[in-house]
Amino acid sequence: MKIYEMRRAPNPRRLRIFLAEKGIDLADFEVEQLDLAAGDNLSASFKAKNPMSGVPVLEFDDGQCLSESMAICRYFEVTHPEPPLMGDSAESQARIEMWNRRMELHLLFPVAMAFRHITGHFADREAVFPDYGADRAQAAARMFDFLDRHLAESSYIAGEDYTVADITALAAIDFARVVDLQIGERAHLAAWHERVSARPSARA
Amino acid sequence: MKIYEMRRAPNPRRLRIFLAEKGIDLADFEVEQLDLAAGDNLSASFKAKNPMSGVPVLEFDDGQCLSESMAICRYFEVTHPEPPLMGDSAESQARIEMWNRRMELHLLFPVAMAFRHITGHFADREAVFPDYGADRAQAAARMFDFLDRHLAESSYIAGEDYTVADITALAAIDFARVVDLQIGERAHLAAWHERVSARPSARA
Repeated sequence: MKIYEMRRAPNPRRLRIFLAEKGIDLADFEVEQLDLAAGDNLSASFKAKNPMSGVPVLEFDDGQCLSESMAICRYFEVTHPEPPLMGDSAESQARIEMWNRRMELHLLFPVAMAFRHITGHFADREAVFPDYGADRAQAAARMFDFLDRHLAESSYIAGEDYTVADITALAAIDFARVVDLQIGERAHLAAWHERVSARPSARA
Repeated sequence: MKIYEMRRAPNPRRLRIFLAEKGIDLADFEVEQLDLAAGDNLSASFKAKNPMSGVPVLEFDDGQCLSESMAICRYFEVTHPEPPLMGDSAESQARIEMWNRRMELHLLFPVAMAFRHITGHFADREAVFPDYGADRAQAAARMFDFLDRHLAESSYIAGEDYTVADITALAAIDFARVVDLQIGERAHLAAWHERVSARPSARA
């Protein structure tokens, strides 16, 4: 199997952390680095693998391709159930999906929009709205505040266990530095960040 | 169990269609309608159920609440596995999640952003960027074109079976009328739309 990714981008990092937590060695995959700024993901050959142009993409040995980070994670969750990162019971699966989606919709996506619309990183291929980017940075900062309160009462994002929701939150928060958003004096969020960053998977 | 929702909003509709496809009768739930324009979802009592303020919310009899449409659907997918709407094998679960997320990221979310930023429907509670809204309407229109090509070769969004990805696409496309986006002459998309709209669940 082959993985197309980009080292510094937050979505590929989500997959790398997920695999490391599953004990799946990235060295068992062929890995191809794409340079998104250079437009490597816009080529016809890459769009045949993922018409939406995003990374990461997982390519099976028969040439079939899977994209969307969480779809790829889902594949490995089912094929490698231990340790569960997306829950096991109906209740835990639903609760973890809720928290993971909150981390996407209210943290990772606002951070990504702030990055794209404040810096104009992809101005060669998309319209850029700097005021909207600034608004999204504020939304992400409000979510930092929310998480600081939430993590006063919870060891991890979705409860007492480390899950995919922590992976999404970590990738989003670390990437937020590109728009000067930092944890700062938020003590509970900082303690959580230290806890999840100390796991070997954080360096995957 | 109780469901908090809003009749005309696309996310609650996703859940209602999902339940109907599972053969779960909405009449078995207590259902409370919220008026989002009036700010019913911004009250302290509702934010105690979902701090992110979105609908639908599923409230269990013990008072625990679950939000995020797909997390609620996941709960019912696990408790009522037949018919599978999110796949059964690792491969089909991953492929359907990929397609459902494509329908969210590249269709439902752009349509929702176009609605909010073109109409200013929630201008009492969020900054409005009309040019960004127009840009998102164009992005959604491009996805209509993509789907028309895709559905020339596929009976349903994620392959030959009806899945949650069709539910997301249907909710998004029907809601897109609020920003004057129509299927028009896209024949394959129109045939798919007629096929999925003919299912009793579409009227749920």
